[in-house]
Amino acid sequence: MINLEDYLDIVGDETISLIHKKARKLLDRHVLHINSTYQGGGVAEILSSLVPLMNDVGIDAGWRIFPGNPDFFSITKKFHNGLQGDSLDLTEMKKKLYVQANERFSVYTHIDHDCVIIHDPQPLPLINFFKKRQPWVWRCHLDLSSPNEKLWKFLKKFILRYDTVIVSNEKFKKGDLPLHQKVIYPAIDPLVPKNMEIPEETISKYMKKYNIPVDKPLLTQVSRFDKWKNPGGVIEIFELIRRKVDCRLVLCGSMAADDPEGMRIYEQACQKAKRYLRDKEIILITSENSLLVNALQRSSSVIIQASLREGFGLTVTEALFKEKPVVASDVGGIPVQVEDGKSGFLVDPLDYKGFAERIIYLLRNEKEAREMGQRGQKTVKEKFLMTRLLLDYLDLLAGIIG
Amino acid sequence: MINLEDYLDIVGDETISLIHKKARKLLDRHVLHINSTYQGGGVAEILSSLVPLMNDVGIDAGWRIFPGNPDFFSITKKFHNGLQGDSLDLTEMKKKLYVQANERFSVYTHIDHDCVIIHDPQPLPLINFFKKRQPWVWRCHLDLSSPNEKLWKFLKKFILRYDTVIVSNEKFKKGDLPLHQKVIYPAIDPLVPKNMEIPEETISKYMKKYNIPVDKPLLTQVSRFDKWKNPGGVIEIFELIRRKVDCRLVLCGSMAADDPEGMRIYEQACQKAKRYLRDKEIILITSENSLLVNALQRSSSVIIQASLREGFGLTVTEALFKEKPVVASDVGGIPVQVEDGKSGFLVDPLDYKGFAERIIYLLRNEKEAREMGQRGQKTVKEKFLMTRLLLDYLDLLAGIIG
Repeated sequence: MINLEDYLDIVGDETISLIHKKARKLLDRHVLHINSTYQGGGVAEILSSLVPLMNDVGIDAGWRIFPGNPDFFSITKKFHNGLQGDSLDLTEMKKKLYVQANERFSVYTHIDHDCVIIHDPQPLPLINFFKKRQPWVWRCHLDLSSPNEKLWKFLKKFILRYDTVIVSNEKFKKGDLPLHQKVIYPAIDPLVPKNMEIPEETISKYMKKYNIPVDKPLLTQVSRFDKWKNPGGVIEIFELIRRKVDCRLVLCGSMAADDPEGMRIYEQACQKAKRYLRDKEIILITSENSLLVNALQRSSSVIIQASLREGFGLTVTEALFKEKPVVASDVGGIPVQVEDGKSGFLVDPLDYKGFAERIIYLLRNEKEAREMGQRGQKTVKEKFLMTRLLLDYLDLLAGIIG
Repeated sequence: MINLEDYLDIVGDETISLIHKKARKLLDRHVLHINSTYQGGGVAEILSSLVPLMNDVGIDAGWRIFPGNPDFFSITKKFHNGLQGDSLDLTEMKKKLYVQANERFSVYTHIDHDCVIIHDPQPLPLINFFKKRQPWVWRCHLDLSSPNEKLWKFLKKFILRYDTVIVSNEKFKKGDLPLHQKVIYPAIDPLVPKNMEIPEETISKYMKKYNIPVDKPLLTQVSRFDKWKNPGGVIEIFELIRRKVDCRLVLCGSMAADDPEGMRIYEQACQKAKRYLRDKEIILITSENSLLVNALQRSSSVIIQASLREGFGLTVTEALFKEKPVVASDVGGIPVQVEDGKSGFLVDPLDYKGFAERIIYLLRNEKEAREMGQRGQKTVKEKFLMTRLLLDYLDLLAGIIG
């Protein structure tokens, strides 16, 4: 089982002690997290570490999952994209199905907690179907900097009932929300299979198992096949790089089950990468295996993250934690993590030439690349591990129900 | 919201009244359903109708969802297949991760209910991590007729702690389980978008939207791209049929997100169907849209279900409910639903010629096909609607906590 003390060697005595001290004021307080499956594996990953840790330090933290069906998720996926700026056809039917699914969820969800924390837009309207007896927090993991206006207006009706809104970036705070807004950065768990230290032989085993040759430098982007992650752009960047340096590109990411768009993006990537697939100059992987991702990140010379939008970018955090230099888009939470020229490079997401130049530079300057990776790891240890996230939640809860 | 009375026109006064009568003995009893996401959209579909209905008739029914991660689901998918007879490498690591995920779930799941109902193998070990204060029911939706022996022995350790086991078929009862075992057939909800009556123009709209021509008779199999559903076999059956009758085949089904096997099965189907794709003799659809499935089933002349294994086969139920003759494998719960020669035909799953002959017969004998469909709908209305399932659960609960 997860114990806070397991993090001792990584974060030190003071952090562990501080967590226990802050938790003391919240012992036995009853907190409920609610999220939905799909669209945000990252949120589920965070909660599966955070919630047990909260319990371990004496808070009575629950976690309920909103069971949408494919119709519901097809709507909330559009909302997800709309909140990040896409246009959408906000029909009455979509609004109705979205709210109805929440009403239905409320029927069999019993809430008698001291505080309710709702993650992302899917369960947002739930608050309308309960007599409010405690503070409600909306924790949004998306890039809210330029949402579709009509959608924002529609969702704001629900948001206004909340007591606090948490976003992942100062830039995502909304001027038109007369609410307490707070920035909390997400975090990774250093002890889970995706991030834990693994021996060289495990790394080799996984690279062999998935047929990834390690004879040349590897460039890697770990991300869902999703338009915001721009896999097509990464392939174009690779084409610029390979004219100068002999290397391989790995694109590794899952595809949403019921997401025709994801399927299309994947097929486009296959098409674009076609002539490089035979000799494995480009390798596309759709498995979602934590140890593979871990081995892959550790085997790579440079990690790319060419996202067009990014809430925070936990794949960047994972890569930095493994002492890898990251060349990434200057969007969302990425500049919070990557210090340009220090732990990697920040590039305009459409500047493919810029991406290629920085990556070539790192491939040709191994020592500097290594030093950048080390600085990146230091930043992550200080700011983006689960223990820091737990501290932020303790502070938040102390302010609300302490 | 869902009200029991909405089913009145379909099932009649007596059924509604009987449900209320049986529910009276269970008012305010607190029941908890637990399932996991993935591997069994069918289970989630059932619960999303059943749980609100239970609440509507006065039972206090909750529903919690077990949040596995991709590593966990890759193991439980192997268990799922193993329970249906596949061989698997049951390593200590797999066992450990499976049990640990359950232990972790137990930490933040508070159970003070009068009865706990656990669905399928994923949350099965949960019972080991609670002090037992109420009856626990294991409701298994899989074909248990010939499970992998080692796996069964391992899982039995958990099953023996349960008070009642529910399976979907008399054939799935286990001789080596000294427990109360009960058969409950699954059911469909006639009022959800996938099954509800829809006007002709909605049907046309969806057929157009998904580019499915309706100029020739349509054969359809609605099923995930999964080896047990044998999409490759369906394509071979179609090749036999098209020599005799001009028609089109539609394969419509989702693919599991993180399921490399599903991906492979889909690609194999694409390859096999290749020369028929251009002229849309075969149409492959990976969208999961309820109204599309509804429209597709209603537009088809014959529904195929060529599964190699089948727990129950709710897609057969859906088709019969829409007055469509079904030609299906004589496996799992299908013979419970389809009366051979009356509401469709039952065929050995490997007898492709047999499949083709029956389908050709139905295509050439429209009147008989129509009558078979009508008989099929009658059976479903009597035996396989959500109201009957609710009655079965009320009887079950009356026996345990009434």
